[in-house]
Amino acid sequence: MSKQPRLVSTICEFREAIGLARREGKRIGLVPTMGALHEGHLSLVGAARAECGFCAVTIYVNPSQFGPRDDYARYPRSLEADLEALARGKADLVFAPGDGEVYPPGYSTWVEPPAVAAPLEGRHRPGHFRGVTTIVLKLLNMAGADAAYFGQKDYQQALVIRRMVEDLNVPIAIRVLPTVREADGLAMSSRNRYLTAAERQQAVILWQSLCLARDLVARGERRAAAVVERVQSLILSVRPARIDYVALVHPETLEPVGEIRQPSLATLAVVIGRTRLIDNVLLEPPAHPS
Amino acid sequence: MSKQPRLVSTICEFREAIGLARREGKRIGLVPTMGALHEGHLSLVGAARAECGFCAVTIYVNPSQFGPRDDYARYPRSLEADLEALARGKADLVFAPGDGEVYPPGYSTWVEPPAVAAPLEGRHRPGHFRGVTTIVLKLLNMAGADAAYFGQKDYQQALVIRRMVEDLNVPIAIRVLPTVREADGLAMSSRNRYLTAAERQQAVILWQSLCLARDLVARGERRAAAVVERVQSLILSVRPARIDYVALVHPETLEPVGEIRQPSLATLAVVIGRTRLIDNVLLEPPAHPS
Repeated sequence: MSKQPRLVSTICEFREAIGLARREGKRIGLVPTMGALHEGHLSLVGAARAECGFCAVTIYVNPSQFGPRDDYARYPRSLEADLEALARGKADLVFAPGDGEVYPPGYSTWVEPPAVAAPLEGRHRPGHFRGVTTIVLKLLNMAGADAAYFGQKDYQQALVIRRMVEDLNVPIAIRVLPTVREADGLAMSSRNRYLTAAERQQAVILWQSLCLARDLVARGERRAAAVVERVQSLILSVRPARIDYVALVHPETLEPVGEIRQPSLATLAVVIGRTRLIDNVLLEPPAHPS
Repeated sequence: MSKQPRLVSTICEFREAIGLARREGKRIGLVPTMGALHEGHLSLVGAARAECGFCAVTIYVNPSQFGPRDDYARYPRSLEADLEALARGKADLVFAPGDGEVYPPGYSTWVEPPAVAAPLEGRHRPGHFRGVTTIVLKLLNMAGADAAYFGQKDYQQALVIRRMVEDLNVPIAIRVLPTVREADGLAMSSRNRYLTAAERQQAVILWQSLCLARDLVARGERRAAAVVERVQSLILSVRPARIDYVALVHPETLEPVGEIRQPSLATLAVVIGRTRLIDNVLLEPPAHPS
């Protein structure tokens, strides 16, 4: 059994623990999470430890990034299991604050996110990224870390945060690590645990449809509309699936791509039963299409 | 002749110079300005030096805090004279970036200011405080200072910044220093240099009217409306004066005060000719009014 990381719940304790690590000469890697941890999170912890020497994990289900129809109330909370996982992952410090510590009475400052927050998730979840940029900036300021770690599964989130950090001159490196997948390809996500056994099997259609997009482009298809149509058809072949969006976009601007001549991001949001899942993959057109 | 402070124009040089001072064991005091420096600014420089040991001054006329009808184009720029003044004031470092360094192409992240930004200046200058919070957060992040210094003349600005720093957990102390005044009481301001000789004489009415408010309250007047009316009448006795607002407000919430039973802020914005001036004073009601 591994030693559990130190758990703190106030900003003051969090800063003191980080200051202590700094005085021991360590660099600080930060992994912001909403808990319900899985192997994707643990890969971030591993990278933070390897690159910085000290890994601080925050666990906070941030109410301001959930819309009124989102799953804030039922979002999984599992602190005990998370601490066990972080012990295995050798995290050094865990910060799990309450709402009053993060948003005290009278709280009223928000970060209006950069332009890349507007399409895709931003369009389907109004206000979501304003909550994300605000909580992430707050956590970065609390931690004063050297680097913060995010997963590529939430591609747009990582891009929004990277742009915010650049625009606001936050002195931190943003690192984005590859999506970790189940054996059948489903991207790991805290929301996967909402799925029934039948839905879990159906959910693999997200990854299968992204693989289809990748294969079409690798075989020379350059018309984004044709790729999107094939992806949509495949997803809709699964009975309880509802598409929020399927899009091929520029990986930096997130603007729709017409013809696939440069690396492009295929990204989608699909509702399986009651559970909304997202995934994405970078498409690399061949230099000399057949 | 005093030695001029080091002048840098890129964020990279600015950070390096501050890092150097830190490695010499100094604490860092930051004085953000728009240049056109006067004794008010120099009092902030003196406090930063005394309290931190190292004073960095930023000089940047921030376009995003000026509205379309504001005086951005004619705002005074006087870098040579400013550097002379900062040499006398013994500032250590001056950062004077260009627009492209602060807002590079594609810039799109903004800080939505806290609730105290809504009334008074916020109401009369829509968007002003969004520009202020954004540039100040950027400068704080660039400098990584221990403390930042602001003048009480811009009372609401200082309050907005203090709230933003608290809300976003920025690790810095915000210090607010008393307004520095000319011999006749006019608050020092870069915009005073817009005034014609005749207007300069008339402008003293701002301070005189605040003194009237202070005297009325000291003599036992508790009705805010009565104080505001007397102040307005006095100001309007000066021919070219136009009132933007005269208000008695709670010093922390900036909400209007009805009866003056606690310390309250008298604050006003008055246009003299083409020049908009602001000033304020804290009113302390007597414990036992006569």
